[in-house]
Amino acid sequence: MNSTTEKWEKEQRQVELRFEPLMRFGMDAPLLLDCGVELAPLEIAYQTYGVLNQDKSNAILVCHALTGDQYVASTHPVTGRPGWWNTIIGPGRPVDTNRYFIICANVIGGCIGSTGPTSLNPATGKPYGLSFPVITIGDMVNAQARLVDALGIAQLFCVIGGSMGGMQVLQWAAAYPEKVFSAVPIATAAWHSAQNIAFHEVGRQAIMADPEWCGGDYPNQLRRPEKGLAVARMAAHITYLSEAALHEKFGRNLQDREKIGFGFDADFQVESYLRHQGSAFVDRFDANSYLYLTRAMDYFDLTAEYGDVLADAFRGTQTRFCLISFTSDWLFPTSESRDIVQALNASAANVSFVEIETQKGHDAFLLEEPELFATLTGFLNAAAQKRCLKNGF
Amino acid sequence: MNSTTEKWEKEQRQVELRFEPLMRFGMDAPLLLDCGVELAPLEIAYQTYGVLNQDKSNAILVCHALTGDQYVASTHPVTGRPGWWNTIIGPGRPVDTNRYFIICANVIGGCIGSTGPTSLNPATGKPYGLSFPVITIGDMVNAQARLVDALGIAQLFCVIGGSMGGMQVLQWAAAYPEKVFSAVPIATAAWHSAQNIAFHEVGRQAIMADPEWCGGDYPNQLRRPEKGLAVARMAAHITYLSEAALHEKFGRNLQDREKIGFGFDADFQVESYLRHQGSAFVDRFDANSYLYLTRAMDYFDLTAEYGDVLADAFRGTQTRFCLISFTSDWLFPTSESRDIVQALNASAANVSFVEIETQKGHDAFLLEEPELFATLTGFLNAAAQKRCLKNGF
Repeated sequence: MNSTTEKWEKEQRQVELRFEPLMRFGMDAPLLLDCGVELAPLEIAYQTYGVLNQDKSNAILVCHALTGDQYVASTHPVTGRPGWWNTIIGPGRPVDTNRYFIICANVIGGCIGSTGPTSLNPATGKPYGLSFPVITIGDMVNAQARLVDALGIAQLFCVIGGSMGGMQVLQWAAAYPEKVFSAVPIATAAWHSAQNIAFHEVGRQAIMADPEWCGGDYPNQLRRPEKGLAVARMAAHITYLSEAALHEKFGRNLQDREKIGFGFDADFQVESYLRHQGSAFVDRFDANSYLYLTRAMDYFDLTAEYGDVLADAFRGTQTRFCLISFTSDWLFPTSESRDIVQALNASAANVSFVEIETQKGHDAFLLEEPELFATLTGFLNAAAQKRCLKNGF
Repeated sequence: MNSTTEKWEKEQRQVELRFEPLMRFGMDAPLLLDCGVELAPLEIAYQTYGVLNQDKSNAILVCHALTGDQYVASTHPVTGRPGWWNTIIGPGRPVDTNRYFIICANVIGGCIGSTGPTSLNPATGKPYGLSFPVITIGDMVNAQARLVDALGIAQLFCVIGGSMGGMQVLQWAAAYPEKVFSAVPIATAAWHSAQNIAFHEVGRQAIMADPEWCGGDYPNQLRRPEKGLAVARMAAHITYLSEAALHEKFGRNLQDREKIGFGFDADFQVESYLRHQGSAFVDRFDANSYLYLTRAMDYFDLTAEYGDVLADAFRGTQTRFCLISFTSDWLFPTSESRDIVQALNASAANVSFVEIETQKGHDAFLLEEPELFATLTGFLNAAAQKRCLKNGF
């Protein structure tokens, strides 16, 4: 047995053992997807933090980004790393687990326990691979709505998310306005831009170019397109940072050497860093999931769903919105948040908007960013007051 | 014989037949490279346009960019496409072939006839592959200087180039100030930024991840890492455009369909365009050359060569400079040209600087850009007057 096989089997065990709790909807309750396919069974792996109050009015749904997961404030069972929003969510944090009940679910199409291309296709008894139907941001949200229903929550106090998570927030507010008391879309857009589609396409082509991808059938062949997925991650990772951040963090500094090596090793720190990002990613993410989730983002266009008038997506909404963008984010630039704010204004919604000055690029929403923390705290406090949420319930 | 082999052999024939004229320096005249290796034989494939005047004072050297070549104003023998700067160079054009003698040479490390990794290694009689020494922008310029000497030209009237070509212009001005009457570095920088190194590294990793690359030995194994090279090109191509240009040109328009296809075909025009860019590129470019030339750009840091004081690179220069940048160029943003202008001012050089307002991104220097044409015409006319060049000699 070679090391790839070993690794694969180890990961499969991890999947089976650790991605709990899991909400399961059986063959009798299929989810009708936007592509027309009925998906069943449907499993949603999720995590919760804090305590749901008696009238179930303090629930906050956190929507994760492309390569995020449900381990928003607890240790990731595969990587052993702390929750990806540990700084935001926890006791006394901006999203205070002493006060709110936090839910975060792995999106469908994902690879951390929710139904996706690594799941078993009931028709064949083997992993779906590319026979998994192409899903949309709308499908992700519809699946989450089922989870929220199953947890007995009629209305979420807030839906929060950045990047692809922010797309889900917008979709929630548009599709289920009565279920969303407040909404915080961060570093996101109402439609995916041509440049962003282009970067995603590069990543997908890198994966598909890897012969280990086997036309998407690698799970059944005990192979893994690790090199292709690593290249996809490297390309994407550059877009998460800003030129200023890269300059400040690495500049032209050399890695473990005093002079350039006149070769193709990682002479520069930035190369070494990117290679590490690529190789660490393949240990925790599935290549087919990467195809499906990037595709869902590409397909996202809330405007098109509402006759090219974004304001119509929010017509008559009672939801309180807080939009946040970052000055150095070139993946989801402030102008795209401003388009949403204008649409919300046009539909007479309650909306606040903060553009945060930072050099950290798109990734700022995941990092130590005091103004982000302050904005979240302030908005949630005001919304809680409006919702008559008491401190400590 | 499979089609890859056929294609390869066809291209090899093209190499032998068509990349002329060629200047050859034999085993007795090695070029000492920055890495310490002596390169011999050294062949430089070049093209010329116009007529050299009697006192050899009207020569303009054009330096090409990463994936450019010597066919600056004539049909490319492999692709059949017109010269890449046909709009700039020709009779009555901004760089007027009725007035100037234009030289453009394929850089060493390239794959269009000059000595590079596809050339035969005299030690083995086989293509160099990765046994080719890693070269620098300085090495490229030293090789060009030999060509210019061999053509009997003591001083170039002007050296012009964009992007990697601009780096060569700066290197020429720094290393051979007495040989450069005027210099036009366009859309370039005095050192390659961390973000640009990062994008290059993604491209290199995409090539090296392709099993057809064979550790760089593919020429000897009659294989070609086409998929990896195509992915590298796709990633790079995005950086040559601007978000605004992509939005205007493609937006979210679909390709040959009215609705999204819920699959991984090229639904969007921007995907189809990128795929075409990738596949067209592999027909005309060598993967190992791509590694070597991107590396040369990464290594470029004129400041470091002059004790971290860029002005010292130009101390006492008599060369007349004209720098040009483009507002939407995020690969070589205006700030990097401004750094050069400041250094030139600090060394009391004669310098003009134009930032051109355009949405075309980095590629603007290759495109129909009237202000670029006007700037070049004006600068060359003034310099020609100073140099006492007569019209029509």
